Amino acid sequence: MKLWDKGFSTEKKIDHFTVGNDRQLDLVLAKYDVIASKAHAQMLGKVGLIDEAEAKSLVKELGVIGKSIEKGTFTIEDDFEDMHSKIEYLLIEKLGDVGKKIHTARSRNDQVLVATQLYLKDELIEIKNQVKTLFDLLLKLADKHQKVLLPGYTHLQIAMPSSFGLWFSAYAESLVDDLYFIQAAYKVTDQNPLGSAAGYGSSFPIDRRFTTETLDFETLKYNVVAAQMGRGKAERAAAFGIASVASTLGKLAMDICLYMSQNFDFISFPNELTTGSSIMPHKKNPDVFELIRGKCNKLQSIPNQLSMIMTNLPSGYHRDLQLVKEVIVPSIQDMKACLEMMSFSLKEIQVKPNILDDPKYDYLFSVDTLNEMVKNGVPFRDSYKSMGKAIENGNFKPKKDIEHTHEGSLGNLCLEEIEAKMKKVLG
Amino acid sequence: MKLWDKGFSTEKKIDHFTVGNDRQLDLVLAKYDVIASKAHAQMLGKVGLIDEAEAKSLVKELGVIGKSIEKGTFTIEDDFEDMHSKIEYLLIEKLGDVGKKIHTARSRNDQVLVATQLYLKDELIEIKNQVKTLFDLLLKLADKHQKVLLPGYTHLQIAMPSSFGLWFSAYAESLVDDLYFIQAAYKVTDQNPLGSAAGYGSSFPIDRRFTTETLDFETLKYNVVAAQMGRGKAERAAAFGIASVASTLGKLAMDICLYMSQNFDFISFPNELTTGSSIMPHKKNPDVFELIRGKCNKLQSIPNQLSMIMTNLPSGYHRDLQLVKEVIVPSIQDMKACLEMMSFSLKEIQVKPNILDDPKYDYLFSVDTLNEMVKNGVPFRDSYKSMGKAIENGNFKPKKDIEHTHEGSLGNLCLEEIEAKMKKVLG
Amino acid sequence: MKLWDKGFSTEKKIDHFTVGNDRQLDLVLAKYDVIASKAHAQMLGKVGLIDEAEAKSLVKELGVIGKSIEKGTFTIEDDFEDMHSKIEYLLIEKLGDVGKKIHTARSRNDQVLVATQLYLKDELIEIKNQVKTLFDLLLKLADKHQKVLLPGYTHLQIAMPSSFGLWFSAYAESLVDDLYFIQAAYKVTDQNPLGSAAGYGSSFPIDRRFTTETLDFETLKYNVVAAQMGRGKAERAAAFGIASVASTLGKLAMDICLYMSQNFDFISFPNELTTGSSIMPHKKNPDVFELIRGKCNKLQSIPNQLSMIMTNLPSGYHRDLQLVKEVIVPSIQDMKACLEMMSFSLKEIQVKPNILDDPKYDYLFSVDTLNEMVKNGVPFRDSYKSMGKAIENGNFKPKKDIEHTHEGSLGNLCLEEIEAKMKKVLG
Amino acid sequence: MKLWDKGFSTEKKIDHFTVGNDRQLDLVLAKYDVIASKAHAQMLGKVGLIDEAEAKSLVKELGVIGKSIEKGTFTIEDDFEDMHSKIEYLLIEKLGDVGKKIHTARSRNDQVLVATQLYLKDELIEIKNQVKTLFDLLLKLADKHQKVLLPGYTHLQIAMPSSFGLWFSAYAESLVDDLYFIQAAYKVTDQNPLGSAAGYGSSFPIDRRFTTETLDFETLKYNVVAAQMGRGKAERAAAFGIASVASTLGKLAMDICLYMSQNFDFISFPNELTTGSSIMPHKKNPDVFELIRGKCNKLQSIPNQLSMIMTNLPSGYHRDLQLVKEVIVPSIQDMKACLEMMSFSLKEIQVKPNILDDPKYDYLFSVDTLNEMVKNGVPFRDSYKSMGKAIENGNFKPKKDIEHTHEGSLGNLCLEEIEAKMKKVLG
Repeated sequence: MKLWDKGFSTEKKIDHFTVGNDRQLDLVLAKYDVIASKAHAQMLGKVGLIDEAEAKSLVKELGVIGKSIEKGTFTIEDDFEDMHSKIEYLLIEKLGDVGKKIHTARSRNDQVLVATQLYLKDELIEIKNQVKTLFDLLLKLADKHQKVLLPGYTHLQIAMPSSFGLWFSAYAESLVDDLYFIQAAYKVTDQNPLGSAAGYGSSFPIDRRFTTETLDFETLKYNVVAAQMGRGKAERAAAFGIASVASTLGKLAMDICLYMSQNFDFISFPNELTTGSSIMPHKKNPDVFELIRGKCNKLQSIPNQLSMIMTNLPSGYHRDLQLVKEVIVPSIQDMKACLEMMSFSLKEIQVKPNILDDPKYDYLFSVDTLNEMVKNGVPFRDSYKSMGKAIENGNFKPKKDIEHTHEGSLGNLCLEEIEAKMKKVLG
Repeated sequence: MKLWDKGFSTEKKIDHFTVGNDRQLDLVLAKYDVIASKAHAQMLGKVGLIDEAEAKSLVKELGVIGKSIEKGTFTIEDDFEDMHSKIEYLLIEKLGDVGKKIHTARSRNDQVLVATQLYLKDELIEIKNQVKTLFDLLLKLADKHQKVLLPGYTHLQIAMPSSFGLWFSAYAESLVDDLYFIQAAYKVTDQNPLGSAAGYGSSFPIDRRFTTETLDFETLKYNVVAAQMGRGKAERAAAFGIASVASTLGKLAMDICLYMSQNFDFISFPNELTTGSSIMPHKKNPDVFELIRGKCNKLQSIPNQLSMIMTNLPSGYHRDLQLVKEVIVPSIQDMKACLEMMSFSLKEIQVKPNILDDPKYDYLFSVDTLNEMVKNGVPFRDSYKSMGKAIENGNFKPKKDIEHTHEGSLGNLCLEEIEAKMKKVLG
Repeated sequence: MKLWDKGFSTEKKIDHFTVGNDRQLDLVLAKYDVIASKAHAQMLGKVGLIDEAEAKSLVKELGVIGKSIEKGTFTIEDDFEDMHSKIEYLLIEKLGDVGKKIHTARSRNDQVLVATQLYLKDELIEIKNQVKTLFDLLLKLADKHQKVLLPGYTHLQIAMPSSFGLWFSAYAESLVDDLYFIQAAYKVTDQNPLGSAAGYGSSFPIDRRFTTETLDFETLKYNVVAAQMGRGKAERAAAFGIASVASTLGKLAMDICLYMSQNFDFISFPNELTTGSSIMPHKKNPDVFELIRGKCNKLQSIPNQLSMIMTNLPSGYHRDLQLVKEVIVPSIQDMKACLEMMSFSLKEIQVKPNILDDPKYDYLFSVDTLNEMVKNGVPFRDSYKSMGKAIENGNFKPKKDIEHTHEGSLGNLCLEEIEAKMKKVLG
Repeated sequence: MKLWDKGFSTEKKIDHFTVGNDRQLDLVLAKYDVIASKAHAQMLGKVGLIDEAEAKSLVKELGVIGKSIEKGTFTIEDDFEDMHSKIEYLLIEKLGDVGKKIHTARSRNDQVLVATQLYLKDELIEIKNQVKTLFDLLLKLADKHQKVLLPGYTHLQIAMPSSFGLWFSAYAESLVDDLYFIQAAYKVTDQNPLGSAAGYGSSFPIDRRFTTETLDFETLKYNVVAAQMGRGKAERAAAFGIASVASTLGKLAMDICLYMSQNFDFISFPNELTTGSSIMPHKKNPDVFELIRGKCNKLQSIPNQLSMIMTNLPSGYHRDLQLVKEVIVPSIQDMKACLEMMSFSLKEIQVKPNILDDPKYDYLFSVDTLNEMVKNGVPFRDSYKSMGKAIENGNFKPKKDIEHTHEGSLGNLCLEEIEAKMKKVLG
């Protein structure tokens, strides 16, 4: 049941090699192939390439198939190369010759393009929503724990007072940056490729503006060659956005793993969220956060992996591009799982109070004490030397009540401004 | 002349290892350090941390230094660790104690942050402009050669008629997508980090909104920890944008190298743009395009390289981040050189007419001929079989005059729509 | 049935997130866990940590489990976290308290280490054998087609005469280099990590030399911390070897795809190995080779992906390392499939004779003609100029019968020497 | 002075773009071009392509040039494209027509190949020696501090007793694995490519075995196409070896940075090796180790960067390959600098005694105590439960004097065996 079959019996081995796990991945994408096929059928009817009645029956049968996908009863047997051939088979089974007409003025190439872009659009919105959920949680935690101090490190050396307020909201504000890339990816995918056929268009008088509107794309990818070049490029665009979110999430997970170590002991989580050992009752392994970290680091390697697949391929379709699917689909699933687990777990975080009572953190306040001198008019470099001497002679006493007041400092977190920034991005 | 020097003589070897080629790279960034320092001095005066008169003299002297940078007479000798210490030295030399005050309420860390982000903003705009220049050229070439046909390939096999109009404008429309990422990167960099000090703010009552406006940032990176986490993140954001442009440029270069091969022979360039050999007069090596291709492929590896440097670093500054500079600065230079050379060279392209007269390209028209049958009412799959038979029996005669009329096809390039899309991105 | 379960009901969600597709991957590795467990049980008996009778019954039951794995009846239900807990469960079910003793003096950590390394050893040998098969085929093809000429390209420009003999055997000799890396990887994996427990050894008087011999490792990874650091490192070592083979295979596939294009038309394959279209009978899409190319390019990104997961993890086990398994196992399967498909397909290659009769290839011989002048005593640069003039004046006639005689040239392929080189690597 | 110049004035811009920083990089490689040229000249004399007297005078003049390179007086002016043209110019200046004859039977392509491989061989040996130096230091430190205990972590949680002996020697034994890859790379580079000309050999009766012996290559890269395909491949082979060493070095640097944090406080370094601040006297920033870490992480991205440049280039030379030089040469310099700085700094390490006296580390010994129960006959799982109860009831007292005796454990480091392993690798 290969669409390109010319009667030769292609060896099973080759079939296995070339099809790979496409059928499984196509179960995720089939929903979007049906949506696009409906729009295509309607368009064919509208421009008269098929009868209106034919269009209607195609749309109706596609609706039935769409329902079976929703219910999880749709399957792609080994007889079928992919979802496209299975769906077409179902249409022909029901509608005979009319079923065959769905393939008028399109090719599998633009079917894959349009289904993938519709899929990516949905998933990018889902990721954006999950990022927003995490963002809200981070701001809430920042607000709740804003007075609880934390050592700030540079070079992993104790450096300056920080706070849980600063720490949580830093990651919130960082996520805003990542959304710029999620949105850039969305714009790349929000351009209708349908109608590009095998990448060079066709002589059919199709109406690409109609399918663009019907499928709710913001615009067309006009040029048919450009539309075809979107294969892989759209996926990499999504991967850039994902890599950006993943870098922030992975860093947060690294901080958490470190802060849960007995050598820091700044935070803890309920037993349900850690793994332990009865003989090492102190041990609370942060498996969930280690896996978020590991998966996010892996996700950051995806744009490069996609580039390796596409690099130096001349324009025009190549079968190599099929491999993009098996890279991007699991990556999106991993990204969503990481975001979900982070929000799910982080809301249970338990913050240790009074961390800075430990005398090892006293020097944290040396810079602030120095700055007071500067505010009183002593040039910075001179204050610096005199202060150094005071410490050397053992005369230094930390003043822990100094206020930070400027925008974004631990006494003035600007949480509302950060929230406004996020609102602006979300539009 | 190390700012952190405590009197110990640090071994030369370590100095060499830790400073690396920072001084050379800082010559590129010094301009931006001066701009940011001016705004900082003005702000210090405004909030009363220094006298207005002191602020004015600092601004004036910084102006002098800025001019020397512009003229190329500014140098960073081996006595100085970096541009920051050299500039501070010059201020102190001229203004004595007042010079020292420039360092009030800031640290080298946020100096680097703000200078780098100002630099990136300028360069991203420059890249955007260069992309626009190339885009315009591609549209012009598409318009000029829109009627000249070209074989369209899938799997590197001759497949469907294409045209120079389609080919040139495909790359133009593709560049629009890349600009979404350049702009996302721009937004990431367009947030003022100044005032974050060593990454945890300070007790000085500084006015970060003032420096934000003065430096023409769209907004603040409010949270000081988030501002510090921007180190490396902003550069990677730029690298994502660059990688995106590079992927399009590299692909175009690959097409060009292929089409210049005697086995395609679709295009040529004047001798000045190729390298040759007197004993192989046919040989026109496309060195320029091969180097664009190679450099663009290298550029696509940069986000990954930056991620490797930053991955799993906990929050807070680490010296590793210094290495980001030596990655991003040459990458930006390479990107600009590639864009410049592409526009410079591509405008000289010579397009071969009548390529499709070669009978090996006859089958290009088989799909169109088939589609005519479909338009006349025969179901696609049936037309397909009957057509196959015709070809098998040697009865196939290509109809080369078939029109493609739909949006984005070779008969309807939608160049104006593509131009409008670009305009919309540029805002 | 979590081994670390302390009575808390861990949320299903977390279970799903942390276990991932480990159960599926473990079906591949289970065989090796059984082998290592047998050796461990024997050793425990030998040093007296358990009775000899207990050791025997453990070994016997492990044999039964091993058989079920071989037959494909072994399963890992959702109640079990991984193969280790399932296998232990089966032992306890059969042997009661004795079954529990298998876990004496080891931890899951070194179970994973030893099973993975045994697995990698087997697969690296398999890959080596497949490379050898391909190598032999390439030499055979080189020998068979050694006289058939081919244009040699530089810069994709027609440059010098080459031959199928040269082309096939070039890839053969290149594969020898790749095997150096497969063997380096083998040496890394061929060191027994068993006994390192959780990465810090134990107070049990185990005999690691005994398990080393029993498991046929060449040596111990002595230091227990080093043994633990092998997690991920051994896999990346294998990935380096695989990436090296993949780079050669991918390049060969690129050549094949290019040479199958109608614009080169140097080679062809039977219909069974290509995909086509009845309306474009000339079209023979090299899907198999495109997928080999794409998969091989993906494989070349694996070392980087593993590095991204491991970078900046301090010493000691982290859960992130679990993710290495889901990267390396499919990569090995892909590598083997690519090697198998390449050998399977390449043996059917059809080589076009008389390619160089096409006058477009005449200039291929200009260098050789030039060299004849040089051999007759004219300095190279002078010959060069005079020859250029001859061509310019249209006086050039290619002498196509010039002999290349030096080692490795098209007239003297040194196939035996290349074969000897391979033999030496294989030892 | 371009060798390929046909009289056209190529624009300066193109020259700048295509030559890049080649002249600077060539200063590093020039020495090897001279060595290879000498061998080539001798061979030309031997086979009679030039007179013995001509060969002698060429060798002599090359010797003079070699000396000037050694003394640092050799320069490549902007008139010359690269070292090859400058060296040829010098020969012609001195020897007239005889000078021109050096280029007989070779091309710039195989000049670059042979010079690069000779360079890589030298550098790989140098890296191997530096690794050996570090290895020796690590073993010495392991021996010296073998009794000093350290907490062992899993998941960054306190887990089991470790020791400085274990920690230092773990990195030593790990370095052995890395050398397998350095040696694999060496074998790849140790094959003479000279004589492959432009990648397709020539009709000259050259004696490649002679140059192989003269240049001290172990064997020939026989096939001339394979020799050409070594461009980039040899460099990536070296990059694999370097990435392997870098991963070990980077991990050690990460441990060091962590252990220097006040939250661990396991080790320290003299002031000369850290950077500090007079107002934060506790602060000892491990800049040297952070830069080793960062540079080593960057080095791990190099194989991928090289792959990106080379992927999907068909066989035959492409100008893209020139870019490989600007990637590999600085990487080798960075690798050597990191190894040198690590050995230079690590020998000054100060180890804290009595770390485990801190009661927070008491639970480290729970596993060992448990194991004693097991040794006394209680099944592991039962001991585990009973022990857990003891801890829960507060009855647990750590027995800190338990002995680890098995191979590779903290009581039996097997330093001699590890040393023997290294000896075996070095051969």
